[in-house]
Amino acid sequence: MALTAKAPAACTARSVKVGSRTATVMRVAAVEKPTNWTEKYIKEVPVSLLRPGVDTEDTIRAKFEKVIRDAQDSICAAISEIDGKPFHQDAWTREDGGGGITRVLADGNVWEKAGVNVSVVYGSMPPEAYRAATGTAPADLEKAKAAGGRVPFFAAGISSVMHPRNPHCPTMHFNYRFFQTEDWNGIPGQWWFGGGTDITPCYVVEEDLKHFHGTYKAVCDRHDPAYFPKFKKWCDEYFLIGHRKETRGLGGIFFDDLNDRPAEEILAFSKDAVNHVVEAYCPIVKKHMNDSFTEEQKQWQQIRRGRYVEFNLVYDRGTTFGLKTGGRIESILMSMPLTSRWEYCHEPAAGTPEAEFMDAARHPRNWV
Amino acid sequence: MALTAKAPAACTARSVKVGSRTATVMRVAAVEKPTNWTEKYIKEVPVSLLRPGVDTEDTIRAKFEKVIRDAQDSICAAISEIDGKPFHQDAWTREDGGGGITRVLADGNVWEKAGVNVSVVYGSMPPEAYRAATGTAPADLEKAKAAGGRVPFFAAGISSVMHPRNPHCPTMHFNYRFFQTEDWNGIPGQWWFGGGTDITPCYVVEEDLKHFHGTYKAVCDRHDPAYFPKFKKWCDEYFLIGHRKETRGLGGIFFDDLNDRPAEEILAFSKDAVNHVVEAYCPIVKKHMNDSFTEEQKQWQQIRRGRYVEFNLVYDRGTTFGLKTGGRIESILMSMPLTSRWEYCHEPAAGTPEAEFMDAARHPRNWV
Repeated sequence: MALTAKAPAACTARSVKVGSRTATVMRVAAVEKPTNWTEKYIKEVPVSLLRPGVDTEDTIRAKFEKVIRDAQDSICAAISEIDGKPFHQDAWTREDGGGGITRVLADGNVWEKAGVNVSVVYGSMPPEAYRAATGTAPADLEKAKAAGGRVPFFAAGISSVMHPRNPHCPTMHFNYRFFQTEDWNGIPGQWWFGGGTDITPCYVVEEDLKHFHGTYKAVCDRHDPAYFPKFKKWCDEYFLIGHRKETRGLGGIFFDDLNDRPAEEILAFSKDAVNHVVEAYCPIVKKHMNDSFTEEQKQWQQIRRGRYVEFNLVYDRGTTFGLKTGGRIESILMSMPLTSRWEYCHEPAAGTPEAEFMDAARHPRNWV
Repeated sequence: MALTAKAPAACTARSVKVGSRTATVMRVAAVEKPTNWTEKYIKEVPVSLLRPGVDTEDTIRAKFEKVIRDAQDSICAAISEIDGKPFHQDAWTREDGGGGITRVLADGNVWEKAGVNVSVVYGSMPPEAYRAATGTAPADLEKAKAAGGRVPFFAAGISSVMHPRNPHCPTMHFNYRFFQTEDWNGIPGQWWFGGGTDITPCYVVEEDLKHFHGTYKAVCDRHDPAYFPKFKKWCDEYFLIGHRKETRGLGGIFFDDLNDRPAEEILAFSKDAVNHVVEAYCPIVKKHMNDSFTEEQKQWQQIRRGRYVEFNLVYDRGTTFGLKTGGRIESILMSMPLTSRWEYCHEPAAGTPEAEFMDAARHPRNWV
């Protein structure tokens, strides 16, 4: 769009490698804080976004930051290689503590829009924002809330959405996060992990779904044979578009509040899961990126993108929470598709591949 | 789209006049209740959706139904005449009581998507859904909630969104509603009116905004000189996209919980307001519907449509409430634009007409 400047200036950047990291990204220029954002852009991405002296190498916090930053690098590199276009990078710090690295590949050859965000933030949050992980009795939580004050916390995560051009290539989303609170009004400090990877095709290709779900079943089974059935079901339930009674996509894994075993074990599982995003997703994209498609198939994709928007803006916890609590809007809404479509009373005709998708979205299946 | 059947069958209809009403609409066929909707389609639109013997001619309920059904007819007729295409109509009844008439003009010559809905519903609602209008002490409300049971209510309204094709033609929204509760757990029955008409252009054309706001100032002034300044400000505040710190459009009027004078007076004001939708909006569309536009201007419109989606799905009370309480999804989401767009970090270059719009959206102005 010749018409529009990509503002703020942070978004106009030259293409260079950042430090020793391997992903193809662009370095960003320092700019003034824009009027309606609460973050400050930074020129150089720091080696670590952690608190010096506090989040030492032996902490889960430091280990998790390494996992997600390495994953951001390797996944962006893999996607860039397929697409042929580099990711653009914005790095920012947050006044209250921490910062983030947003990478976006817009208007690519294969992807219309792909983003991979990392953020590491800490500080204190209002009690209303405190969601108790397994283990806190509701009565204790109410008592602590009544005592007032803010909850000291640390949160780190990686999140990503990739929307390809070709309607035969699925959209993919993943998110892995670690959350920790310190002792607060009599409630001992807590920690938990959450995350998942899920796929949103426009068409049912059983072989592809077997591959995607099979990859994550194998990852899960290496850590706990109970994980996959539990997290697959959780994914179908979480990504339900309630008002439509249909799922956003065709599943994957999802988990939250996970702290039922040593943190090191869940860290290892999370690392394994995020490190299999490329293996689970990229072969499907490579297989279909040159498939021919009709105008009708593109419109069907656009309608499914509309459903993606509905889920994210109405139900997704991260999105709704982030929008209402002053998160970085452009990072949060990076998950929006480039374009989407709403038609009144649209329903695919019986017997079509589109109707087959709707059946799978209305009645989640086991693919492996 | 040859690919898709407009299902359910209710949506495949022939073009006829409905009864003596003047709008160009299509009559709908009776169909089975679709799997994921809770309404039943009806073949013939009843003369009244009211309760026989209860909502007698002398009640505000009956008078308001006449206002909104007449307005639906006259507004659809005016829009159809400009567009050249008829509205499609779906009529439905609700198991718990009442029903509605949804009219949609899709893929028109001037409008990409325009819808005008009327609904008249009654029954009982859970106490959580009860929003106290001016006059109920919070303590009394809490006491009534604690006593349990459901609140007997009546609600009627007209709502509409119209999205034109041409980026120089504004989107327009209006909604007028009447709500009434019966005595419930010691709280006397209450009633209130709400509503408004607002405009969402992509560009600032001062003359057009003077006309639109001026029309509503004149309507307001006929009823109470305090109305316009109050309802204009309320509109700017209500249609704020909180996370963006910008308004959805360029204002109009908005009011809610209005019951500070005899119901007949507010009814007369609401009638006057809904009956000036055509005068306020149509001349602006006629003026610009044949304006030439560039691909860049169309993309800017698509980005503003994305903001429209953000507001409606994240903030709009009617939409969020309706989606989560089992309203008729296709009627609620009729407000969605046909297509929309999200670009990462999009911000118009300084000095452009698009930047001028952003300035007006970030700093609401008085146009009259």
